[in-house]
Amino acid sequence: MAKAKSLITVDEIVGAWAIMPTPAKPGSDDWRSEDTLDLDEAERAIEGLIKGGVNGILALGTLGECATLTWDEKYKFMATLVEVTAGRVPVFVGTTALNTRETVRQTRIASDLGADGTMLGVPMWCAPSVATAVQYFKDIAEACPDMGICVYDNKEAFKFDFPTNFWAQVASIPQVVTSKYSSMDRLLQDINASHQQIRFLPIDAAYYGAARMHPEFCTAFWTNSAVCGPNAVTRFRDVIKAAKESNDWAEANNMAGEIGHALAPLFPNGSFKEFSIYNIALEKARMNAAGWMNAGPTRPPYHILPDAYLEGAQESGRRAAALHKKYSSLKSPAAAE
Amino acid sequence: MAKAKSLITVDEIVGAWAIMPTPAKPGSDDWRSEDTLDLDEAERAIEGLIKGGVNGILALGTLGECATLTWDEKYKFMATLVEVTAGRVPVFVGTTALNTRETVRQTRIASDLGADGTMLGVPMWCAPSVATAVQYFKDIAEACPDMGICVYDNKEAFKFDFPTNFWAQVASIPQVVTSKYSSMDRLLQDINASHQQIRFLPIDAAYYGAARMHPEFCTAFWTNSAVCGPNAVTRFRDVIKAAKESNDWAEANNMAGEIGHALAPLFPNGSFKEFSIYNIALEKARMNAAGWMNAGPTRPPYHILPDAYLEGAQESGRRAAALHKKYSSLKSPAAAE
Amino acid sequence: MAKAKSLITVDEIVGAWAIMPTPAKPGSDDWRSEDTLDLDEAERAIEGLIKGGVNGILALGTLGECATLTWDEKYKFMATLVEVTAGRVPVFVGTTALNTRETVRQTRIASDLGADGTMLGVPMWCAPSVATAVQYFKDIAEACPDMGICVYDNKEAFKFDFPTNFWAQVASIPQVVTSKYSSMDRLLQDINASHQQIRFLPIDAAYYGAARMHPEFCTAFWTNSAVCGPNAVTRFRDVIKAAKESNDWAEANNMAGEIGHALAPLFPNGSFKEFSIYNIALEKARMNAAGWMNAGPTRPPYHILPDAYLEGAQESGRRAAALHKKYSSLKSPAAAE
Amino acid sequence: MAKAKSLITVDEIVGAWAIMPTPAKPGSDDWRSEDTLDLDEAERAIEGLIKGGVNGILALGTLGECATLTWDEKYKFMATLVEVTAGRVPVFVGTTALNTRETVRQTRIASDLGADGTMLGVPMWCAPSVATAVQYFKDIAEACPDMGICVYDNKEAFKFDFPTNFWAQVASIPQVVTSKYSSMDRLLQDINASHQQIRFLPIDAAYYGAARMHPEFCTAFWTNSAVCGPNAVTRFRDVIKAAKESNDWAEANNMAGEIGHALAPLFPNGSFKEFSIYNIALEKARMNAAGWMNAGPTRPPYHILPDAYLEGAQESGRRAAALHKKYSSLKSPAAAE
Repeated sequence: MAKAKSLITVDEIVGAWAIMPTPAKPGSDDWRSEDTLDLDEAERAIEGLIKGGVNGILALGTLGECATLTWDEKYKFMATLVEVTAGRVPVFVGTTALNTRETVRQTRIASDLGADGTMLGVPMWCAPSVATAVQYFKDIAEACPDMGICVYDNKEAFKFDFPTNFWAQVASIPQVVTSKYSSMDRLLQDINASHQQIRFLPIDAAYYGAARMHPEFCTAFWTNSAVCGPNAVTRFRDVIKAAKESNDWAEANNMAGEIGHALAPLFPNGSFKEFSIYNIALEKARMNAAGWMNAGPTRPPYHILPDAYLEGAQESGRRAAALHKKYSSLKSPAAAE
Repeated sequence: MAKAKSLITVDEIVGAWAIMPTPAKPGSDDWRSEDTLDLDEAERAIEGLIKGGVNGILALGTLGECATLTWDEKYKFMATLVEVTAGRVPVFVGTTALNTRETVRQTRIASDLGADGTMLGVPMWCAPSVATAVQYFKDIAEACPDMGICVYDNKEAFKFDFPTNFWAQVASIPQVVTSKYSSMDRLLQDINASHQQIRFLPIDAAYYGAARMHPEFCTAFWTNSAVCGPNAVTRFRDVIKAAKESNDWAEANNMAGEIGHALAPLFPNGSFKEFSIYNIALEKARMNAAGWMNAGPTRPPYHILPDAYLEGAQESGRRAAALHKKYSSLKSPAAAE
Repeated sequence: MAKAKSLITVDEIVGAWAIMPTPAKPGSDDWRSEDTLDLDEAERAIEGLIKGGVNGILALGTLGECATLTWDEKYKFMATLVEVTAGRVPVFVGTTALNTRETVRQTRIASDLGADGTMLGVPMWCAPSVATAVQYFKDIAEACPDMGICVYDNKEAFKFDFPTNFWAQVASIPQVVTSKYSSMDRLLQDINASHQQIRFLPIDAAYYGAARMHPEFCTAFWTNSAVCGPNAVTRFRDVIKAAKESNDWAEANNMAGEIGHALAPLFPNGSFKEFSIYNIALEKARMNAAGWMNAGPTRPPYHILPDAYLEGAQESGRRAAALHKKYSSLKSPAAAE
Repeated sequence: MAKAKSLITVDEIVGAWAIMPTPAKPGSDDWRSEDTLDLDEAERAIEGLIKGGVNGILALGTLGECATLTWDEKYKFMATLVEVTAGRVPVFVGTTALNTRETVRQTRIASDLGADGTMLGVPMWCAPSVATAVQYFKDIAEACPDMGICVYDNKEAFKFDFPTNFWAQVASIPQVVTSKYSSMDRLLQDINASHQQIRFLPIDAAYYGAARMHPEFCTAFWTNSAVCGPNAVTRFRDVIKAAKESNDWAEANNMAGEIGHALAPLFPNGSFKEFSIYNIALEKARMNAAGWMNAGPTRPPYHILPDAYLEGAQESGRRAAALHKKYSSLKSPAAAE
């Protein structure tokens, strides 16, 4: 199952990186369920993303239910992801755990399975100091030298602000090559502080601004919308690339607006903090409404969602599906291969 | 190893409940360490607490390193705790995990080992809504009907405010009999809302105020100072009891002041939020400075502590040790047994 | 108009201290209004509170619209308050302003008018450090040596936590004799740190707990319910006093529950932070629904209140009015004078 | 003194807008001081800024001590600013007060004096809802139709997040033409929501990113560094303009780095929240260390600054002064006029 591999580099992190869920069988929101992984749907979605032209896959983060899978389920999903992908695109799998030793254990197994990297947050029982967070990434890198690290910058989940002096320090760890990034007001500063050793991935809707601010370095983004149908985000990637060359940004700006409009109702009252409480159930409701894949129910304890918030998530999914459809006839060359 | 047991009741939660650490061998702050449990010291400390007269033991919380032990270590410690205690006092062990199913798994094993209950927080990847938190406790209680539950009210760790309407709802779960409690400004309100079905345990230094506000119901407290030597807190328990009968509170007030004075320098700049970042390393430094037991180093990633904060923790330990010594000649009848 | 006066002492701060509004004429929620003070209603309410048996009056705080009155209106209200009260009870008027010099100016005028003290927060443009807050109170005390100071502990309004080391320092200022206090979890600690030189006034609903925790020192409270009819709170004051003597707290506990029940719906979703956004409009809606006095509309910009919150405030007022009525036939001796 | 004027438009907000202090005489940190305005220095600094080539002046904000001046001082400073400027550049003066009516009073006087606009925050006793904040700006605009409004987006001072739906609503007020803006992560979104009716001014160090993200609309910035010597920031303005034309951003990027480097040590431990506590004293220490002008001491109560923070502010001033000197020989054409 494992492939021979060398450590992935920052130069290999380009284009559209899709975040994907861990599909769940019906009934998976019941704590009595033991084998919740919908393997068929996982295989279908992975194949669909790659065929759809995404450049990389990020799995087992928040919406990937890193926290609520059993170890057996997580292992099976990682193995499937690596096998189906078969090296066509790089894959990063989440191995965030409650402590350093468990993270080492999971990351080593993921590495042995053939994953290119781990999407990794910080242990979350105590809010970490900068020194604690930096040492943690150093320890994981030392223990798992072949695994790339995508720093998972989620301030609500990890109770950590990921400040500039954190980036300045982890930039010297060769394994730290990218970040699922959410500090857009500090992007240029963090790029400088990390000496362009970490590809910061903004969310798709923010990629337009990033690409304009630093066209040479900002060449990749993450997206939670590829699993609602990948055509809009792969097209967006290509449109941005073309705009950098032509310096005509009109179409790119327009698509950024479309993607942002589709995303907006996912956030209850526009609040990321409120979104974070219901993150997983909202994202899965969105995907299920989009209909491109079946993410299934949310695993406990995060399966409870107020009715008032459900409709926004579904509307967001419907808008994303409409964009996917709109851009289906305009498939980018990469996606068409 | 297991004992026959029936569900513990709120009436059985009385007196001084000691929080204890999971003693670590030298070198345990290195992530390469595999078997970090100092079993001899664990046995010695458990025996010492019981001989010292505490009424119950809470283990595997934050300072008990619930988050950073391997499962094997945690299992061994739980088994040892139950075996050494041998039913002389009730024991609650922490089984907080990242999700409902893993908590069920751990709690069932703890129950089979013979623990009386679990000291249980809420999964912490996403901040829970009240509905999510209530359902979580209901699910655990349903899955583990023989285990008492001590709700672990730590707002920083669990990103949850434990509001009054939470208590009102979990009060109807028979397993929820007590709480390591930290919402003193709402104590009377929470006692009312929970219809006296949950024994709220304030920290020792706050027990004086609780005992005066509601002498009939406030009959127990938790203490992180028993592991610095138990004589002051067991004496304090008895002095409060006597004050309730005599309505002469002078000595109790004086002891509350002493215990608070010993505790104060543990908190950097008086801040609980700052304390929470370094909680485990601070508490273990305190215990080690007190010298009553050897808690050993802190397991990763929480082993990093600024020098500026170390001295406060050690001073707090020395003060607690001095109080233990002061009250050694005044051992309470319970402790002398 | 002014009376000869000496500095009020901590021993004079006892019993029920009523917070009162600054009644507004119809149309006062329009920024074009110039003379919004309903002087007749102010006189009637002041007289009613004193006849109703309150022990002191606090005016020109948040709900007293310290922030939104013109200086002329504020001056007229202060003069009226002093004149109608005529020394029968002590009166504290709010002179919180944006800086030290303006506070000195207003406080000196209030002192000349004959007010006994000022209910004083800290300037709120920048969140103050402890050193800044302490120096501010020292400066005001030095500039206005005859005025008592009631420290206005409102954490949301003043962006300040009023920590224990603040109280320890302002306790040595002779003018600082009391505080409208909201840090119940630190009450005993703050009483100790301030060497009983500051009478901390809890809100009525929390006075039961305070009186039990420290019966000797906790002899006074503030109440926003006297202006919904004073009979319940003055009765409550006397019931607590009797309980301290008899050590039978059943009736006191019952009344604390009643008062808390009446207060509860004032707070949207139980949140003090949310309440603070709409504080003034909520409190005035409450009073107006209670019907004991006519507080009038809220002055701009704080006159906007979501419909969803209005009903809670009104229900709170109706409950307070019902309690007033219930205890009208049970008037305490003090109130009957 | 007043000039004839028509309402300033968004198109007139371009280039470098200097924030300036209200210079204070020696001893102004004593609350006994009555006439603290150093008028000579004010005149000199205003003239220096204009000669130095700034495009507009913002006065009487936080560091301009809007909160701590007496009304007489504020009036005198506004009159001087308008008179010395004599229409050569637009001037906005701060009239933020505790309520709507007082803001109207001050703004009307400022308008009569000839100011082009007000730099206006929201009343800060209660945190405002979006509806409250929007209505407040509508009321001021209605009352003062000839005055431009620069929305003062300072989240710490005004306890308000200035969210996108706020901008969407105030964009329809003709007087709202610009904002001293600090929400860089939402810049494109806010530009869209406000239909390009509000010129958002980022701080100089963030102007590079803004200008790249939206070169057509982002044509102006605010700067607290012009008062440390204006040559670097006016040069920066011109370099950015040239870069937009040539699409060669190297020099602009380099200058943004220099300006950011000079600014950095002003923020204690990199924290804006901590900076906000000591904002005024830090900024004045910075200016005084730079030596281009003499801002004098800080007015009470904000004159207290920990020694540990002073050095950072002074270093920041020295760096800004060095940049000013470096670019003195490279004066831009506009500055040389």
